[in-house]
Amino acid sequence: MNHDKNVTTTIGHLIDGKLVADTERTQPVFNPATGQSTTSVALASKATVEAAIASAEAAFPAWRNTPPLKRARVMSKLKVLLEENADKIAALITAEHGKVLADAHGELQRGIENVEYASYAPELLKGEHSRNVGPSIDSWSEFQALGVTAGITPFNFPAMVPLWMWPMAVACGNTFVLKPSERDPSSTLFIAQLALEAGLPPGVLNVVNGDKLAVDTLLQDPRVKAVSFVGSTPIAEYIYAEGCKHGKRVQALGGAKNHAVLMPDADVDNAVSALMGAAYGSCGERCMAIPLLVAVGDEVGDAVIAGLKTEIAKMKVGPGTDNSNDMGPLVTKPHFEKVKAYVDSGVAEGATLVVDGRGVKVAGHEEGYFLGACLFDNVKPGMKIYQEEIFGPVLGVVRVKTLQEAMQLINDHEYGNGTCIFTRDGEAARHFTDHIQVGMVGVNVPLPVPVAYHSFGGWKRSLFGDLHAYGPDAVRFYTKRKTITQRWPSAGVREGAVFSFPSSR
Amino acid sequence: MNHDKNVTTTIGHLIDGKLVADTERTQPVFNPATGQSTTSVALASKATVEAAIASAEAAFPAWRNTPPLKRARVMSKLKVLLEENADKIAALITAEHGKVLADAHGELQRGIENVEYASYAPELLKGEHSRNVGPSIDSWSEFQALGVTAGITPFNFPAMVPLWMWPMAVACGNTFVLKPSERDPSSTLFIAQLALEAGLPPGVLNVVNGDKLAVDTLLQDPRVKAVSFVGSTPIAEYIYAEGCKHGKRVQALGGAKNHAVLMPDADVDNAVSALMGAAYGSCGERCMAIPLLVAVGDEVGDAVIAGLKTEIAKMKVGPGTDNSNDMGPLVTKPHFEKVKAYVDSGVAEGATLVVDGRGVKVAGHEEGYFLGACLFDNVKPGMKIYQEEIFGPVLGVVRVKTLQEAMQLINDHEYGNGTCIFTRDGEAARHFTDHIQVGMVGVNVPLPVPVAYHSFGGWKRSLFGDLHAYGPDAVRFYTKRKTITQRWPSAGVREGAVFSFPSSR
Amino acid sequence: MNHDKNVTTTIGHLIDGKLVADTERTQPVFNPATGQSTTSVALASKATVEAAIASAEAAFPAWRNTPPLKRARVMSKLKVLLEENADKIAALITAEHGKVLADAHGELQRGIENVEYASYAPELLKGEHSRNVGPSIDSWSEFQALGVTAGITPFNFPAMVPLWMWPMAVACGNTFVLKPSERDPSSTLFIAQLALEAGLPPGVLNVVNGDKLAVDTLLQDPRVKAVSFVGSTPIAEYIYAEGCKHGKRVQALGGAKNHAVLMPDADVDNAVSALMGAAYGSCGERCMAIPLLVAVGDEVGDAVIAGLKTEIAKMKVGPGTDNSNDMGPLVTKPHFEKVKAYVDSGVAEGATLVVDGRGVKVAGHEEGYFLGACLFDNVKPGMKIYQEEIFGPVLGVVRVKTLQEAMQLINDHEYGNGTCIFTRDGEAARHFTDHIQVGMVGVNVPLPVPVAYHSFGGWKRSLFGDLHAYGPDAVRFYTKRKTITQRWPSAGVREGAVFSFPSSR
Amino acid sequence: MNHDKNVTTTIGHLIDGKLVADTERTQPVFNPATGQSTTSVALASKATVEAAIASAEAAFPAWRNTPPLKRARVMSKLKVLLEENADKIAALITAEHGKVLADAHGELQRGIENVEYASYAPELLKGEHSRNVGPSIDSWSEFQALGVTAGITPFNFPAMVPLWMWPMAVACGNTFVLKPSERDPSSTLFIAQLALEAGLPPGVLNVVNGDKLAVDTLLQDPRVKAVSFVGSTPIAEYIYAEGCKHGKRVQALGGAKNHAVLMPDADVDNAVSALMGAAYGSCGERCMAIPLLVAVGDEVGDAVIAGLKTEIAKMKVGPGTDNSNDMGPLVTKPHFEKVKAYVDSGVAEGATLVVDGRGVKVAGHEEGYFLGACLFDNVKPGMKIYQEEIFGPVLGVVRVKTLQEAMQLINDHEYGNGTCIFTRDGEAARHFTDHIQVGMVGVNVPLPVPVAYHSFGGWKRSLFGDLHAYGPDAVRFYTKRKTITQRWPSAGVREGAVFSFPSSR
Repeated sequence: MNHDKNVTTTIGHLIDGKLVADTERTQPVFNPATGQSTTSVALASKATVEAAIASAEAAFPAWRNTPPLKRARVMSKLKVLLEENADKIAALITAEHGKVLADAHGELQRGIENVEYASYAPELLKGEHSRNVGPSIDSWSEFQALGVTAGITPFNFPAMVPLWMWPMAVACGNTFVLKPSERDPSSTLFIAQLALEAGLPPGVLNVVNGDKLAVDTLLQDPRVKAVSFVGSTPIAEYIYAEGCKHGKRVQALGGAKNHAVLMPDADVDNAVSALMGAAYGSCGERCMAIPLLVAVGDEVGDAVIAGLKTEIAKMKVGPGTDNSNDMGPLVTKPHFEKVKAYVDSGVAEGATLVVDGRGVKVAGHEEGYFLGACLFDNVKPGMKIYQEEIFGPVLGVVRVKTLQEAMQLINDHEYGNGTCIFTRDGEAARHFTDHIQVGMVGVNVPLPVPVAYHSFGGWKRSLFGDLHAYGPDAVRFYTKRKTITQRWPSAGVREGAVFSFPSSR
Repeated sequence: MNHDKNVTTTIGHLIDGKLVADTERTQPVFNPATGQSTTSVALASKATVEAAIASAEAAFPAWRNTPPLKRARVMSKLKVLLEENADKIAALITAEHGKVLADAHGELQRGIENVEYASYAPELLKGEHSRNVGPSIDSWSEFQALGVTAGITPFNFPAMVPLWMWPMAVACGNTFVLKPSERDPSSTLFIAQLALEAGLPPGVLNVVNGDKLAVDTLLQDPRVKAVSFVGSTPIAEYIYAEGCKHGKRVQALGGAKNHAVLMPDADVDNAVSALMGAAYGSCGERCMAIPLLVAVGDEVGDAVIAGLKTEIAKMKVGPGTDNSNDMGPLVTKPHFEKVKAYVDSGVAEGATLVVDGRGVKVAGHEEGYFLGACLFDNVKPGMKIYQEEIFGPVLGVVRVKTLQEAMQLINDHEYGNGTCIFTRDGEAARHFTDHIQVGMVGVNVPLPVPVAYHSFGGWKRSLFGDLHAYGPDAVRFYTKRKTITQRWPSAGVREGAVFSFPSSR
Repeated sequence: MNHDKNVTTTIGHLIDGKLVADTERTQPVFNPATGQSTTSVALASKATVEAAIASAEAAFPAWRNTPPLKRARVMSKLKVLLEENADKIAALITAEHGKVLADAHGELQRGIENVEYASYAPELLKGEHSRNVGPSIDSWSEFQALGVTAGITPFNFPAMVPLWMWPMAVACGNTFVLKPSERDPSSTLFIAQLALEAGLPPGVLNVVNGDKLAVDTLLQDPRVKAVSFVGSTPIAEYIYAEGCKHGKRVQALGGAKNHAVLMPDADVDNAVSALMGAAYGSCGERCMAIPLLVAVGDEVGDAVIAGLKTEIAKMKVGPGTDNSNDMGPLVTKPHFEKVKAYVDSGVAEGATLVVDGRGVKVAGHEEGYFLGACLFDNVKPGMKIYQEEIFGPVLGVVRVKTLQEAMQLINDHEYGNGTCIFTRDGEAARHFTDHIQVGMVGVNVPLPVPVAYHSFGGWKRSLFGDLHAYGPDAVRFYTKRKTITQRWPSAGVREGAVFSFPSSR
Repeated sequence: MNHDKNVTTTIGHLIDGKLVADTERTQPVFNPATGQSTTSVALASKATVEAAIASAEAAFPAWRNTPPLKRARVMSKLKVLLEENADKIAALITAEHGKVLADAHGELQRGIENVEYASYAPELLKGEHSRNVGPSIDSWSEFQALGVTAGITPFNFPAMVPLWMWPMAVACGNTFVLKPSERDPSSTLFIAQLALEAGLPPGVLNVVNGDKLAVDTLLQDPRVKAVSFVGSTPIAEYIYAEGCKHGKRVQALGGAKNHAVLMPDADVDNAVSALMGAAYGSCGERCMAIPLLVAVGDEVGDAVIAGLKTEIAKMKVGPGTDNSNDMGPLVTKPHFEKVKAYVDSGVAEGATLVVDGRGVKVAGHEEGYFLGACLFDNVKPGMKIYQEEIFGPVLGVVRVKTLQEAMQLINDHEYGNGTCIFTRDGEAARHFTDHIQVGMVGVNVPLPVPVAYHSFGGWKRSLFGDLHAYGPDAVRFYTKRKTITQRWPSAGVREGAVFSFPSSR
């Protein structure tokens, strides 16, 4: 590893409201635009993770008894602090992840929307009340907090994905242990500190940086009642199986291979413009990116290839700190190599490489992990670049003759996260949205990420569990139902015309 | 009228985002703690009210098209501004209404909670979606804004009651014309200005000060689609009949005569302490005040009278600007005379005046409208002080033998706004809450004003209309349902293997 | 009046579970296919209506205390009885209203769906529960029955419209007084008797036949808490103003003039087929009928006129008892004359009468009120046949150049009940459904009557009130919100290690 | 095993609408009142289970496209058939399970309520619709069926527990494979046949009888998307871990050890009467039975022991076919031995055996598995009869000094299914219901089984998964969320004044 000798700071953990150093095991954190590392991140020991869990457990009783309105107001206050600190947070993201600043701001904005939604807690936590389920018997269901909950989050959205999880978890009355990605931990930790400033009591939110040891400790500790995960499918599967084996509730969001379908009647200019962002934005390192375009008919297929070529030619690649760039570097050196190897394999398997971004060089950033936009035509099912999640700036075009054929491709793929259809035809859109085996569907919307007041989740091997992330489903995931049935025995007090005080008074 | 010659300012209107003077007709505004007037309020002409309606109508199309999330964020911002300006607003309330500053802050806080609830609009405005109501036919219901809506509000909560209405109305996409009480208009107007600062576009919220002319203009103008009113029952009835006659939807909240029931098993010390605030807080000028206590059994009746006497003796009456006072002046000279006359009538009709507050004098404020706390025992149905809403610091105790008798009294009274039972017995509480003909019921809670995420409303002649104020009911009141049923005709586009572009493109 | 001497039976009322004769004032009931009358209907006196109200009031306390599940099961049982008696009910409808039997069955089916929805009462009546609105303070809202409620229903759907109202009203725990149309009262009364058989206790549903005297008695009696009405707009307006003046909650559904918009890209064959039913089904005597077609562009306008001409030529007019007929007679002689006069006026005002149904004769039914389908082209705003509700088999085509022009026409019309757009374009449909000022909107669905689990209601002068008919809105209309706030005073019982039994035991 | 030679029939499977014999492996089914077996049950091979899954998979596409209202109506029809066949079903239950007929009828009634709830599907499946999530962008969430789902059910409620599962699963559009208990399979299979008669298409519901082989086949087959289980905790844990390991969603309900708390102020007579049913009803073979009573204070402890002794002396034990019996036999010989051993161990560990039911003999049924009611006093945590689920007619009394001590016991126990407090004190009840770590809580209701329109589920090791059984949670468990985000590209069609037909027309 290219571990720089000049590392001067080590990013630690946030436990019980205090920063904890824990420098026994560390790992460098790189700036992907320069390939240099000036900071490292602590990798928590089992004891450190257990200390975080213990802190969360100790904070739980008082926090779950805090009225929902008061918990919600911490979220309102946090929202204001996030807006005030947006530039700083975006800079932290860009320095460690590489994405362009404007994109980092966009990510944060989406995260803030989840904080906003968590601030609706008094409304969202309403239970169901039934009078007279039997004569003078009432019953109601409450949604009570679980206790200690945990989240494990990926590198690609270090601000947003944690904000999908813990704000709603704590607004519901839980306490939380967050293990963010060790590749870009700084923005996550800073936001957690803002939450303290907003009034979250110590121990309600703890952050531990770490690796598999931390993950396994969270999965196995009986005090942790629920685990939310976002990452790749093999890890999601492991998290789901392992967490469930230990009796927890788990939601584990995995990989994706999102297809967009281009219908013959679509507005091709619009589609091209939408696809440029959906395929290449944030270097394609998004689980809602569009790496595959299915063109229905050659007429529209040829037109979209032509349009994309033109637009790619105008793209600017460079460090994310410069907002005039369209695309920054990939997140790590190994990931850069892996994506490049996918492009090589696509060529080897016979797809037509229309635009080749492998040779891109960024002056002054020769050590950065930059890859230019790549465009394949004639991609076919079975090719590695068709089947696997690349998580890089590689768009493949598949050509089919009918919508039915396009839908069959999508439904046959192992993933079912997002998809999109470009058309103006109401019937085609309705048929597609009804029958496609995908959890998030766009009609002329290439990245159909649900707004914060709906929920995020894929189907098939893109999500394990029954409830989606954030939005209304998160309320259910982070609470358990308690149903009370109540009958009062007799009318002694109210019918007694003369009634003495109980003798204890 | 004691109109001071030194009046230097006239409070005008807020129309289309601008303050409008309109000084043709004015009326003095008094400081009830001094009996002096240094300001006056403009009374809007018909043309002025129509200008406000026209402004609201013009602002409607753009505002209803603004995404709910953006409208909600204006409310989040307003919340922050209200908190920052709380001292100023409380001072404006106290200066014109007379209530103690701490009480004015409490009122504002309740109002802010309604602004908070309005900021949940994206969640609250969700419609209902049904796939396959028939084969490939879908149907959904949306809740769309009405257009121009209006509110007419009373003197007793110049900050809070307007905030029950317009924040939710505008969060739902409507525009609004508010006619606040002409007795204490300053805090209302100031809050409306803060809303502009928070980002509400000009014309979305307009304020017109005025009298019956303004009210009738709002009721009769066909551009106004809905009217919310809070005030006395005779006016509520007029507003409801007149507004409905003009085809509008109307909710009109009227008077109250809230009974508290004291059960033999109640904790009397707690009850006394709760009743002191409920009966005398804000001089009893609250529609949720408790002016009647029904004691079940003489044992508890004697104990509560003794306890109240002791507590009243400790009360401090004086100007609201001094937070050490428990009670400020009544709102106006005529109202002061009217309340005193009720006390006289109670004596005349044979109730026992246990504590007489009629002689209270506040040094240095001899012209203020101060009345001390009054306590009657042996109040009986039929007496004027039993039947009518006094809206002053007068508490009457009625003695009965059983809960059933107490409940019969309450159910027979023309009003049904709030009520409360003091008991620790689950069965008595459940029987009471189920069968009492009152809209807002407390169990050991003397002022059971629903929190902002529930809704406020009385039964019987305390409310005319079908939906309550604020909370979930307000969302329904300020929106109308639109149900769409959709079927797409044939599968032309998606089944056509070869499909030419439409010729117009 | 053509009162037949051979009338042998008089249809009375159903009060307190018993048929009541009340023959002082009666009115003949005609068979519109023959013009003959063999029955008459009693017109209730004030005393009779008051007896029905008294019965409903007496039945209320026990019924509102009956668990919702038990009330719902009466509806499940009624559903089965309605299905078993469908042929008989359809025959009663056809005999008095005239519509074709298959159409009468269709009406009944729609009514049954409302009975089905009422059987979901346990789910629909759930209130909202909030734990910890403050520390250890809980609050919940219940939706309690109103008491005696009433419905006034029109001739055109004697089975369905009453079933929109009373099943949900009684499922919510209310009792009901129904005043159906005096023109075709038999099916309504028979269904009420089936409800008794299904287990509805006497007095929960009462039926009074009558005229304005009955209506006014219901509107003015203080025991009646809510009134639902369906009929023409002038009467709806009267009902709304008069009922509200007496402090009730009222929903009054009035007239309609529904426009369908035919876009240039629509499937004209489909549209023609849909319009035939929507314009001429049940002789156009439906508030959701389509009497106006707005063709966007002459190309589609010419095509649809041609298609309609062809289809009308195939239509068969005759008695409703013969299912091979497409259209039966109009409901009464005066109504027949009125509709014919509208056709005359259309000709006089310059519209082009493409098909003239005025001369239709049905062999063997020369006294029946038969009118053939009429089709106008070049109808223009301002013409009586454009402005007014005809309620007959008369379809007018208006020609415009753009969708915007079509929408302006619709939004300018006084009514806003239903509308429909024929297109396959997603964007056009979305723009139309969002911006059209109409309560029920179809996309390629000519009669967008909401399914029973949504709600029915128009906008503008088609509905007065804030809640729509049947579906979720009916639950809110037939219940009032009660909000309870509960705090228990101290922990005496649970903290006392040694606790003596209360002395009353 | 006491396998009777006279077995004449073998109970098979129901696959694709047909009874399937599959007699390779069978197991006898006993009548527990006689200890004799006259039938046997087939144990499905892997191929048979796979045939059932294949049938369910084939039936899925048409069924998920069937409008929810039509699916719901099959449930309405089934409800009627279950009521008509109640006697036959109860007889089948009693013959194989042993419970008293009246109890079998009660079980069926509870099951019917779940069928009723499933018939509300059109309401329950409504999704959430949001207009203008951005300018002219709409988003909505649908709840779509999963595909093939499965249920594995226990012996103790052979009619009810399956009806918790499949009616809602199929009403949501899924197809189902049910593996009921092999000890009492007849009533389950008969009900499935009634479902066919009610109109459920072949393959929508399949029943396979079997053992672990069948279970594992369901857990491992990738076509099965969700598994519901009710049984003991060790198996529940296995099902949860194994099902989740194969990527499915799983809800697994396990064991229980429900405590009732008797407060000093409780009505002891009422409590005794309630406990007799809760402890001994159905021989205690219910996961919601009360096997432990925690008496707060010796006064109430002594009183309840005395009361229970008196009542137990009146109990009648005998065959379930005689409704005058209070208690029938235990389900199997091995279970009978196991329960008796628990009683022995309680004596050995030092608990006071107040009533000993071990010697009970039923004349004429000497081979039946009859055990009389047993009552222990002075049971203590740590004893086997305190810690473990006995599932027999054994009630233990634990004595404590305070409610806090009682609650600590309950919260420390591994199970958290149901619990109950007997008190009349509102505060004690509220504190208990809020803080007790149990999913279903009764206040003076000893068996707080939620009604069908709420949901059933325990906490801690009584349930694995995040959604409870039946009621609203079942709707979420048997559906997956799909969120659509839709924007239409441009206004071509509606803005084009002159528009040619698309060339494909």
